[in-house]
Amino acid sequence: ARHIDWSPLMAEKGGYRHFMLKEIHEQPRAVRDTIAGRLLENEGDVYLEDLKFSDQQLAAVRRIVIVACGTSWHAALVGKFYIEGYCRIPVEIDIASEFRYRNPVIDGTTLVMVISQSGETADTLAALREAKSRGAMNMAICNVLDSSIAREAAGVIYTHAGPEIGVASTKAFVTQLTALYLFTIRLGRAVRAIDVPAGQSMIASLKKVPALLEEALKLNADTERIARKYMNARDFLYLGRGKNFPIALEGALKLKEISYIHAEGYPAGEMKHGPIALIDEEMPVVMLVPENSAFEKTLSNMEEVIARNGRVIALCSEGDQEVKGRAEDTIEIPRIDEDLDPFLLSVPLQLLAYHIAVLKGTDVDQPRNLAKSVTVE
Amino acid sequence: ARHIDWSPLMAEKGGYRHFMLKEIHEQPRAVRDTIAGRLLENEGDVYLEDLKFSDQQLAAVRRIVIVACGTSWHAALVGKFYIEGYCRIPVEIDIASEFRYRNPVIDGTTLVMVISQSGETADTLAALREAKSRGAMNMAICNVLDSSIAREAAGVIYTHAGPEIGVASTKAFVTQLTALYLFTIRLGRAVRAIDVPAGQSMIASLKKVPALLEEALKLNADTERIARKYMNARDFLYLGRGKNFPIALEGALKLKEISYIHAEGYPAGEMKHGPIALIDEEMPVVMLVPENSAFEKTLSNMEEVIARNGRVIALCSEGDQEVKGRAEDTIEIPRIDEDLDPFLLSVPLQLLAYHIAVLKGTDVDQPRNLAKSVTVE
Repeated sequence: ARHIDWSPLMAEKGGYRHFMLKEIHEQPRAVRDTIAGRLLENEGDVYLEDLKFSDQQLAAVRRIVIVACGTSWHAALVGKFYIEGYCRIPVEIDIASEFRYRNPVIDGTTLVMVISQSGETADTLAALREAKSRGAMNMAICNVLDSSIAREAAGVIYTHAGPEIGVASTKAFVTQLTALYLFTIRLGRAVRAIDVPAGQSMIASLKKVPALLEEALKLNADTERIARKYMNARDFLYLGRGKNFPIALEGALKLKEISYIHAEGYPAGEMKHGPIALIDEEMPVVMLVPENSAFEKTLSNMEEVIARNGRVIALCSEGDQEVKGRAEDTIEIPRIDEDLDPFLLSVPLQLLAYHIAVLKGTDVDQPRNLAKSVTVE
Repeated sequence: ARHIDWSPLMAEKGGYRHFMLKEIHEQPRAVRDTIAGRLLENEGDVYLEDLKFSDQQLAAVRRIVIVACGTSWHAALVGKFYIEGYCRIPVEIDIASEFRYRNPVIDGTTLVMVISQSGETADTLAALREAKSRGAMNMAICNVLDSSIAREAAGVIYTHAGPEIGVASTKAFVTQLTALYLFTIRLGRAVRAIDVPAGQSMIASLKKVPALLEEALKLNADTERIARKYMNARDFLYLGRGKNFPIALEGALKLKEISYIHAEGYPAGEMKHGPIALIDEEMPVVMLVPENSAFEKTLSNMEEVIARNGRVIALCSEGDQEVKGRAEDTIEIPRIDEDLDPFLLSVPLQLLAYHIAVLKGTDVDQPRNLAKSVTVE
């Protein structure tokens, strides 16, 4: 019999060097678990067991405000595209530490949704209480059963990421995206913005995600090679448009958190209003440029970066011929309905941050100055 | 007679070394001109000659969406506080290059406001056209008479900044803030959210701004000294809360644009969700911490930065005793109604960016890669 020399801690990490790497690899399973038992494929609808709003209640919602911090806030920004795009109800996104002190304009026709992995984030919990005190409908997306936020919200969609140990959130993030997409189907069906075939088609797209996340994980070696090449850069920019702009923010946040490199995300179209001044031959620019309705515009932003000698690392669609050959490095992500690109783009960005941090020798799972769950204000 | 050895260009610059410095110093005049002839002090109201909406039309507005790019987008973020705070109508802020491709949820009860100094910003003009094609009420805040945006919008509030030559916007920004504050009074009176005494009190506060901007300009020598001390920093963070968070973004943008230093603005409460990992003894952190309702919270964010050995440059209220002695450097701004702090905080941030750029020897008025008016997408 083969003797496996694992320490208990290594066993806990499932053979991975860090919890973060383990959790990145758990994403297909985490999304599968978050979908499991919730699809009503014949009806083109979903069943969200702890979200107890009737169709009538949902149809009364005039405006949705999603409140979160950090990575959960990035998930919310993607959710705005899903909900507005399909349900045609205005969605506003706010940062919990801002929302609380804003004297926000909300009432009984506003649905306030809070998102928190731990369910204990102090600012987010306070935002939920603020919303309740103003009579808003309220709900949470949350990963921890019976956490404070889960207990206090009128409705909950639990993500089934499982315990997340690495301080830099990975699998919790993609399950938050999953929950937001599921919620969009439910809301759209309730308000009759999504009909049965449209709901069925959304479900069919979502079901492809876990297997394509497995595919995306095969980019590990590619991203490690790229990490080695750029690990000594002092600064990074991450650019995307539309629903991939929040993914640019999230990619930059991962790098900040664990490698301590100053990375910043920007909507690609804003470059020429300032940040393009930063671009020179020392600046790696991660461009999110999968084939989608914003492809040509984003490609032209990429050309602007190249014209200023920026070094472009492009995340493009598998088999793309236009980006390749122009960008210095490319990472090809599997093709899927463009609404779900954010899921697949997240994986190489997590891996890029991870490998750079490992190469730099930082404490990946416990980066300096950061706590997993921010239970103080 | 004293002989003044001015070149024609220097004469154009009014004796200042750069247009940017001249325009920074023109701000008291620019705000005065933007207010002039518009105050109805007895009625606690304002007269906006090119904004032709009736009270009835304004009372029909259910939601406001402000769309802009770059510095104008930062002004919009401050405007959200003014309008929501006083008029209790939900305000959403969007970036023009994002809004256009978002299939935005707007209709005839939405007022879409666009902000552009030049009135020719391509993405902003396209956003205005998008809003009009969807039947939204629409208006513009604009500095250039008869520009494309001014011509196409149903209503206009002109800023009277005068021609702005420096690529990095300064005086246009404070006049945009002025226009947003004036609009808030008008809207608040129209929808009866602001009564006569409240309108009078807002007018009285606004009238104090020009003279206090003159006071703030006396901080020039202080900021130059601080610029000299930190000019070689590779990165900067700018932190603020509430209506001063957009000013943190604007301060960071100024530094990016003209000094090419990677500066980033963050809401102070978000620090602990990631960016605090960047803090070490090499990182200057500009904290906007005037005495206001968020003072204690922001002070505690400042303490977190100090605990991680970050070097704090604090902008605080004149005579403050709590910030001084804790921050490594302080700049004291004149006291005013806290709603108007963004005006006064802007001045030392503009001067700080200006002096760092001059010390680094960059082309202040024509920074690399940037154009004054972005008329391409």
